[in-house]
Amino acid sequence: MSEKTVNKKYIYNFREGRADMKDLLGGKGANLAEMLRIGLPVPPGFTITTEACLEFLEKRESFLEKLWPHVKEAVAEMERETGKTFGGDKNPLLVSVRSGAAVSMPGMMDTILNLGLNDETVKVLAEASGDERFAYDSYRRFIQMYADVVLGIDGSLLDNVITQTRCSLGVKFDYEVPAAAWKEVIDKFKRLVSREKESPFPADPWEQLKKAIIAVFDSWNTPRAKTYRKINRIPDNLGTAVNVVTMVFGNLGDDCGTGVCFTRNPATGEKVLYGEFLTNAQGEDVVAGTRNPEPIADLEKQMPEVYRELEEVASLLEKHYKDMQDIEFTIEKGKLYILQTRSAKRTAKAAVNVAVDMYEEGLIDAAVAVSRVTPDQVEQLLHKQVDREASYEVLAKGLPASPGAAVGEVVFDADEAEKLGQSGKAVILVRPETTPDDIHGLFAAEGVLTSRGGMTSHAAVVARGIGKPCVSGCEAVQIDLDGQLMRVGEKVIRKGEILTIDGTRGEVIEGEVSLVQPSFSQEFRELLDLADTVSDLEVWANADTPEDARKARDFGAKGIGLCRTEHMFMEAGRLPVMQEMIMADGKDARIEALGKLKVMQKEDFRGIFEAMEGLPVTIRLLDPPLHEFLPDEEELREKMARLEREGKKDTPEYEKVKATLKRALSLWENNPMLGFRGCRLGMIYPEIYEMQIAAILEAACELAAEGKKVIPDIMMPLVGTQEEMRRLKAMVDKVAEKVFEKGGTSVEYLVGTMIELPRAALVAGPIAEYAEFFSFGTNDLTQTTFGYSRDDAEGKFLAQYVMDGILAENPFHVLDREGVGRLMKIAVSDGRAVRKDIQIGICGEHGGNPPSIAFCHELGLKYVSCSPYRVPVARLAAAQAKLGLID
Amino acid sequence: MSEKTVNKKYIYNFREGRADMKDLLGGKGANLAEMLRIGLPVPPGFTITTEACLEFLEKRESFLEKLWPHVKEAVAEMERETGKTFGGDKNPLLVSVRSGAAVSMPGMMDTILNLGLNDETVKVLAEASGDERFAYDSYRRFIQMYADVVLGIDGSLLDNVITQTRCSLGVKFDYEVPAAAWKEVIDKFKRLVSREKESPFPADPWEQLKKAIIAVFDSWNTPRAKTYRKINRIPDNLGTAVNVVTMVFGNLGDDCGTGVCFTRNPATGEKVLYGEFLTNAQGEDVVAGTRNPEPIADLEKQMPEVYRELEEVASLLEKHYKDMQDIEFTIEKGKLYILQTRSAKRTAKAAVNVAVDMYEEGLIDAAVAVSRVTPDQVEQLLHKQVDREASYEVLAKGLPASPGAAVGEVVFDADEAEKLGQSGKAVILVRPETTPDDIHGLFAAEGVLTSRGGMTSHAAVVARGIGKPCVSGCEAVQIDLDGQLMRVGEKVIRKGEILTIDGTRGEVIEGEVSLVQPSFSQEFRELLDLADTVSDLEVWANADTPEDARKARDFGAKGIGLCRTEHMFMEAGRLPVMQEMIMADGKDARIEALGKLKVMQKEDFRGIFEAMEGLPVTIRLLDPPLHEFLPDEEELREKMARLEREGKKDTPEYEKVKATLKRALSLWENNPMLGFRGCRLGMIYPEIYEMQIAAILEAACELAAEGKKVIPDIMMPLVGTQEEMRRLKAMVDKVAEKVFEKGGTSVEYLVGTMIELPRAALVAGPIAEYAEFFSFGTNDLTQTTFGYSRDDAEGKFLAQYVMDGILAENPFHVLDREGVGRLMKIAVSDGRAVRKDIQIGICGEHGGNPPSIAFCHELGLKYVSCSPYRVPVARLAAAQAKLGLID
Repeated sequence: MSEKTVNKKYIYNFREGRADMKDLLGGKGANLAEMLRIGLPVPPGFTITTEACLEFLEKRESFLEKLWPHVKEAVAEMERETGKTFGGDKNPLLVSVRSGAAVSMPGMMDTILNLGLNDETVKVLAEASGDERFAYDSYRRFIQMYADVVLGIDGSLLDNVITQTRCSLGVKFDYEVPAAAWKEVIDKFKRLVSREKESPFPADPWEQLKKAIIAVFDSWNTPRAKTYRKINRIPDNLGTAVNVVTMVFGNLGDDCGTGVCFTRNPATGEKVLYGEFLTNAQGEDVVAGTRNPEPIADLEKQMPEVYRELEEVASLLEKHYKDMQDIEFTIEKGKLYILQTRSAKRTAKAAVNVAVDMYEEGLIDAAVAVSRVTPDQVEQLLHKQVDREASYEVLAKGLPASPGAAVGEVVFDADEAEKLGQSGKAVILVRPETTPDDIHGLFAAEGVLTSRGGMTSHAAVVARGIGKPCVSGCEAVQIDLDGQLMRVGEKVIRKGEILTIDGTRGEVIEGEVSLVQPSFSQEFRELLDLADTVSDLEVWANADTPEDARKARDFGAKGIGLCRTEHMFMEAGRLPVMQEMIMADGKDARIEALGKLKVMQKEDFRGIFEAMEGLPVTIRLLDPPLHEFLPDEEELREKMARLEREGKKDTPEYEKVKATLKRALSLWENNPMLGFRGCRLGMIYPEIYEMQIAAILEAACELAAEGKKVIPDIMMPLVGTQEEMRRLKAMVDKVAEKVFEKGGTSVEYLVGTMIELPRAALVAGPIAEYAEFFSFGTNDLTQTTFGYSRDDAEGKFLAQYVMDGILAENPFHVLDREGVGRLMKIAVSDGRAVRKDIQIGICGEHGGNPPSIAFCHELGLKYVSCSPYRVPVARLAAAQAKLGLID
Repeated sequence: MSEKTVNKKYIYNFREGRADMKDLLGGKGANLAEMLRIGLPVPPGFTITTEACLEFLEKRESFLEKLWPHVKEAVAEMERETGKTFGGDKNPLLVSVRSGAAVSMPGMMDTILNLGLNDETVKVLAEASGDERFAYDSYRRFIQMYADVVLGIDGSLLDNVITQTRCSLGVKFDYEVPAAAWKEVIDKFKRLVSREKESPFPADPWEQLKKAIIAVFDSWNTPRAKTYRKINRIPDNLGTAVNVVTMVFGNLGDDCGTGVCFTRNPATGEKVLYGEFLTNAQGEDVVAGTRNPEPIADLEKQMPEVYRELEEVASLLEKHYKDMQDIEFTIEKGKLYILQTRSAKRTAKAAVNVAVDMYEEGLIDAAVAVSRVTPDQVEQLLHKQVDREASYEVLAKGLPASPGAAVGEVVFDADEAEKLGQSGKAVILVRPETTPDDIHGLFAAEGVLTSRGGMTSHAAVVARGIGKPCVSGCEAVQIDLDGQLMRVGEKVIRKGEILTIDGTRGEVIEGEVSLVQPSFSQEFRELLDLADTVSDLEVWANADTPEDARKARDFGAKGIGLCRTEHMFMEAGRLPVMQEMIMADGKDARIEALGKLKVMQKEDFRGIFEAMEGLPVTIRLLDPPLHEFLPDEEELREKMARLEREGKKDTPEYEKVKATLKRALSLWENNPMLGFRGCRLGMIYPEIYEMQIAAILEAACELAAEGKKVIPDIMMPLVGTQEEMRRLKAMVDKVAEKVFEKGGTSVEYLVGTMIELPRAALVAGPIAEYAEFFSFGTNDLTQTTFGYSRDDAEGKFLAQYVMDGILAENPFHVLDREGVGRLMKIAVSDGRAVRKDIQIGICGEHGGNPPSIAFCHELGLKYVSCSPYRVPVARLAAAQAKLGLID
């Protein structure tokens, strides 16, 4: 025996552990010890450590030999504590054996109850309980579980025995089977085991215990557990602990019972005990569903003292763990035992309410409150959800591939989805799986259902990207494209029938279920305000209209990080004027058209400034290539052909269309993304930018004159060189001087730039000599850094790249730290070296993505700016980034 | 007088200077001093320093007061040396005053001769020379120059006086004007000066000298000089020196003369005195053109001793300066004076020959020889050039888009150019601009002329790539495609008429001008071999065919840095197979088509490997998006319409066209530059790359089996992530294993990647774990770093950016060190940190551009790869980069 093994402590009595020994004792063991430590009634027992597990897995029998004396000691200690004897024929000690890793994990070994029973001890149990049926029922349960779980005998063979017994007895439920029949079942089980395993069922409790412990250890490496760890990036070298606990029985009479309870309502967060129990029952009886459990409130009537004690326990546990708990308990002859406690799972709404309540109760501080809600939960609160109060039946379950719920007519074809979608119909696109050719259908549909494909299938990736609900890989659904129908079992749903999908849960429901609109409750607001007190990062919003700006402000945005001016020109009344400007013959004509646009722009800016009074508004000057404002080439050709057919070839209308086509062709580009756009427009046609700058500053001055505080930040798109920035800054200053002089009022303003080209990041130092702020345009920066056209890549290869694992994430969703992020780091550090207090933010879509926000926090940016709807998620993520909760 | 001024030496007698004091004494002064130092006959004189100039320009009169005593001293020293007296009435000292900066520069003050003459001294000169006409002619020349240059009197007023005099005398030339008439002219000049300047012409030689010196100083700041300095980036704080030199006269009789001579023939480099002289003449007489100078050889007959002395001087100067010299001399009464020496300007051919000869003479080492020829000169040697001796008239000027000259029949259509070209006719393709559809025409034509488009227009880029002359953006040319003619002003040139274009100068010439053939002489080869011994960088070539590879090798390429495989699929017989592959329905059909392509590819690679036996050949796998191999969408639509009209709607042909259109549309992209291309094709359709890899390695193995040394480097395009590289490397290794096993032979190979995306540079470290070499694809890297589409930017805004100075250079021509270069630095340093000996080169077009080559040298790359035609330029530039001669 090595020194190391000699000195290592492999077994902890519950009296020796603590909550913070989770890594060594597993979650269950550590919490049992902790509860005992704070005086709660926990049955005596001990935990074999995760280290023992790992060492066993390596050395097997040789290690077990060394471990065994310690197990015997630990059992002896239990015997002293309980006054019972393990394997004794007087007062036999029965135990449960349970696995318990540090991280809760599916695929691990189930609990074995009633271990220690054999032909002798069962008699004592029968006597002691005065209930022979109970004792033999317990015994056969033990054998059944043990044979299945420890000995690996096919469970259905065991089930058959019981089924035959019930048949021959003519009864329906197990509890109707009498003691005598159970004895026969036990004999049959033993014979079955002997036959299958070629050795008798172990009667020796010590042998039972040893094999059970080995089974727990080995369950660490079941294929299911391994896969789960791989997917969830849980290291393989953690191991599981084994808990050996004195059995307590809730089924020894009417002063017994068992139940589970939450310390608060897990659906709403209301502070009241919530749960259910059964008198004279064991946990299994709840699962079997043969008796309906009663609400926990009824316990007060039936066993008022126990109920009060449970209330105290709940309150103590909440105070101790500072979180809502999910408790398992058993009452044995009027005595309450707590068998497990853990943080309770809860709905998004409850998570918010509990966090805020506990903060207000003084139980937790702001940082903890903020950490209790995940960004995903915030997102749930912002998506339409199936009304959980409504009654509906789930037709089939698939993967929860993209959250939110949708209702619509079933269509089986992307083209049709597009056609119906454009005509205003709500449709659900149902496909075996989707391909890039279906993209237009995905965009047009309310939601997507696929029968094949996982969480990273094409449909799933695209749906998450565009924020549409999706249930993927729903294998129960059989799709008959030719027949234009889908089958779920016997059920047939045809094209045009209504379907509801719940992408949050992965559920498919026939017909229409009412959906709940996203709620923005008082508690939610309070939680986000708490988040703001924790964060270093501010959250701003991207908004192009006064409406959006108001919404953003309501959601808590502290500024507008991106106001795109081009959308203003796209409006019906304005497009013709914009086109007039583009078609203008020479500078004078262009300036005339710009004059008309200026009046409109000024109004736009006034509205946004008013909505954001007192907060900064970052306005980006014209960005897209001019051809985006002209009609489509094909459209123009068709119009010309039509006019020709109508004999209108000599009309001014024809001439105009012809001229427009000519201009459109001259503006056409092979790669518009890399073309004549952004500040390049402002350099070649300065009069366009001068108009916009004047409109911004005139609007600002007018409001300032009315006593309103306006903070305009003027942002240049697509700057790539210092010289562009120098000239643009000079342009703004020159226009400002004129505006201020003419209007007699002045306002403070900043001039800055998007950093959205690799070169801009690389020469950020020189640019910062003239730029007062940077805003990372990570959409374009990702396009140019990767050389991926966002318009094309998704369908052509990007979805496939993500599916095949060539890329871990779609870089348009989650900011690529390695490449794009490196450029950002360069820009931040070089920019600050030149202008210490330069204001730096991000306005790409990554500004609303939690891992990307965490990266922005690391970079020490001032703000992230995202769409108004993502502001709440971003506020929480910013706080959690500060707390180190997001990778 | 400050300490500093007291101690500073402002004036150097020629005896005190040296050649290496150029900064202080100017080039002329330093060389005069140096010649004196090595014992050559230089007339006595002194130099006022450039520092004096700068101080004068700052302090003016106050400084001059302090300077003057030193000038007087220096003149006194000259008087001692010559035995003459300045302003003396016995033996008057006459001087010339000449400017002389460190860098020769236009716009500076002209020389003033004969300073010191006045009404008194002129008489002494007349007497001493025995030639009154000579004396008064000298005097009026002095007044004329001085009035013009120093006093700033309009030269035409002075010319008028002389013209009138000749008229009234009825003579044609100045030398026919007698002394008496010159006296009258002198009087008239003096009156003119008094009237214009309101003060008499200065008779005092000291005043003459002072004003002349001031004039030289001030000429540093003439607008012309300032502009020249700005354009050529010469600092403004250099100043000019002033040289005051004793006059010697070559026109005092038949034992006098004057001339210029080169130490070797400046046109051919032949080692023989070359130049011309006039007996009994001053320099001006040569310029006036009234007498024909005689070849220098004649001097041997006329004054054999002087000639021998001149030969010795020439030899001494060459040995001393180690370069071919351009000498000015004057013979006064049998005595030879050397008035100036400087490095001789020479033709490209002479530069090469002189450098190689001097190297072989042991006069200079390899580094110096290599530094004596500029990359521009190398370029001249590689192209046919317009014979500069021929007389011709330039019709119009455009941009010198691709060097060399061509003569041919004008055609306005690419198809016709091809037809005529193939029939053996020399044609010049004239287009408003070219598009990819015109490529076949560009290949067939001798040269290209476009009326639109800049230095990076399609025509310019393609022409440079294939080494054809091109004049682009020649706006004076109006092209009438319908009329098949072009107009330049009133001039009309029709299809079929002969045109000459000079792409080196951007000139268009009507009719045929004789061309000089390019010479790749033995000396040229020797020079480039010398360059290779100096360089650290190797020069490789971009070549897609065995022909190009052979050419590259002949030009001295040490490897193929980029062999593009896609061009191989574009050939007539192959395109249909390629299309079959693209149209293939499923993987099996694709593999079948690929099988056919493989046979062809293998042949291609064999040819290239054979041509480059023993040298590395870098083969890039398929790069362009697949739609580039399909017919144009419009073409397909038209074909369908035609078939419909012909009632062939149900034929297989129609179906095929329809299917092709569908595929073309599905492959269409908004931004193909950022699309589904490069290794993304290889990731999604691995069978394509597997075919190419197998073809490369099978070809290599076959040759290896024949005993030939083959070095294949397999290059992946557009890699942006480590995972792509990891999988591609594994793919190559797997295919290689199969090929080697099957063929029973194996070859060594490298697998590497282009670095042509910003992200590739940023993650070069991780990529280098799997990539054995990097090759910078700076064309694409420039596109993505700047966000400039090369196809679009030039015409839309880039030309304007360069013109307006927003960009100093077009980054597609000259590598952008600040942005793109920073990425390259990152990639080099991170790549080497991971793989110390990683092979790194560049294969973008910058690989043939000298300043970009200099940057590659700084980065320590292994090689630059450029088009075969640019290999010689690159070899020289690589050497000069090492020598620090290129910025």
